[in-house]
Amino acid sequence: METVSETKCFEGMQGVYTHSSKVCACDMTFALFLPPGPGPHPLLWYLSGLTCTHENAMTKAGAQGWAAQHGMAVVMPDTSPRGGADVADDAAYDLGQGAGFYVDATQAPWAPHFNMWSYITDELPKLLFRNFDLDEARQGITGHSMGGHGALTVAMAFPDRFQSVSAFAPIAHPTASDWGRKQLAAYLGPDEGRWGVHDATVLMRERGLDAPLLIDQGTNDEFLDLLRPEALVEAAALRRQPMTFRLQAGYDHSYFFIASFMPDHMAFHADALL
Amino acid sequence: METVSETKCFEGMQGVYTHSSKVCACDMTFALFLPPGPGPHPLLWYLSGLTCTHENAMTKAGAQGWAAQHGMAVVMPDTSPRGGADVADDAAYDLGQGAGFYVDATQAPWAPHFNMWSYITDELPKLLFRNFDLDEARQGITGHSMGGHGALTVAMAFPDRFQSVSAFAPIAHPTASDWGRKQLAAYLGPDEGRWGVHDATVLMRERGLDAPLLIDQGTNDEFLDLLRPEALVEAAALRRQPMTFRLQAGYDHSYFFIASFMPDHMAFHADALL
Repeated sequence: METVSETKCFEGMQGVYTHSSKVCACDMTFALFLPPGPGPHPLLWYLSGLTCTHENAMTKAGAQGWAAQHGMAVVMPDTSPRGGADVADDAAYDLGQGAGFYVDATQAPWAPHFNMWSYITDELPKLLFRNFDLDEARQGITGHSMGGHGALTVAMAFPDRFQSVSAFAPIAHPTASDWGRKQLAAYLGPDEGRWGVHDATVLMRERGLDAPLLIDQGTNDEFLDLLRPEALVEAAALRRQPMTFRLQAGYDHSYFFIASFMPDHMAFHADALL
Repeated sequence: METVSETKCFEGMQGVYTHSSKVCACDMTFALFLPPGPGPHPLLWYLSGLTCTHENAMTKAGAQGWAAQHGMAVVMPDTSPRGGADVADDAAYDLGQGAGFYVDATQAPWAPHFNMWSYITDELPKLLFRNFDLDEARQGITGHSMGGHGALTVAMAFPDRFQSVSAFAPIAHPTASDWGRKQLAAYLGPDEGRWGVHDATVLMRERGLDAPLLIDQGTNDEFLDLLRPEALVEAAALRRQPMTFRLQAGYDHSYFFIASFMPDHMAFHADALL
């Protein structure tokens, strides 16, 4: 693992690190904020949305001040493998690099590198807990848009791993949305039976979640019809799943929306992790 | 004036606007955050540093949440004229576009457009108070690096205008620094007698400031030798000028530094303006 940068921030340290990923078969970069004070620190995962690298949330989400105040570490991974000519890509913003969708691809040309599911759920956690003073027993997860999809599906796949789960404007029902069907078909192939484990609404119907859950969604979100949070909420209602879903008047899909509700999400995770 | 975007943020509104500037003889863009609630709102000026547009502070400084909480508007102007082939530029990052230095240029090729002093002190204020519900009697000013230089020099030139003045890692003594001598010579010509009105340390010696003053500076700032805050502090000490200068251990020159101390600066300005 190589240190790209370490910058003091809110008395803690904002780091950027690169490492050789086995599952993605390329170098991967992630951002990690460590709060001030002695560890081991609880760890909040922040999964980013389409087109993002590790950098967008690191610079624009405004998480560090609250993370420092609450004494939480925050990891902000990249959203896909990237790099040299051997890593496939697509001209569209919503497929390929910047759009890994938090799945392990089985289809050409994606399968050799696009294994973000294994990266986020296995390889990167091991790397983090080996190299930093983090408390594996206290983890929360959140994310935005495609990253909200990742947060929800990962949380429901690993029911004992996260003590708190939240999302900002998540892609909540990808098997029934143009933000999902295209990518799941490309990465996983046409057999829709394999898609459900990557759909938060399907998982909510079948498994639910044994952790507090908070979802914020802006009413002026230009992508609301693609996100389909109402399907997830319906599944939660039918299941009697405790959760908080807030439609926030006037907010759109941007980082201005994320930053506006970051204080609430950080306090929500702190309640569970501290 | 044209609205580029208006995005809800912390219950307020983050706007971006473009207008035809007479003094810069080109279109200029600025960002304005308006807090929730009825106006007229006090106005904090945030002047940005080298290479920045209106966008850097808008997305990375983390000011909006605190501005909303305190009920303050924040304007984030661009740092120079920009645009078509008739606006001069230089290949260096520290001269020309993105490096207006908050002066009115008298020298070729800069004089026709590079009039940021008149823009910030006259044209933009008039535009703002005409178009938005802002309280001209309650203004504060701050800035980063070159923008800290701008904030301090503007504040001392208009002693009755600002009730509070602060800066993040300002260029504090440009007439004695490579961040300053090059630009003042290019924009104002070789007669150094004309430079002093654009040097915070010189102005502190000659005029001082009748408003509370807060300056934060990181000890790990990679540009500390160019910034020369010690010269400004010496001038303040000799003058018996009340001020607070904080050397913050371990912080560098980045927006991570700015964001870390933005809560303090917003509270400082709120104390004076509310």
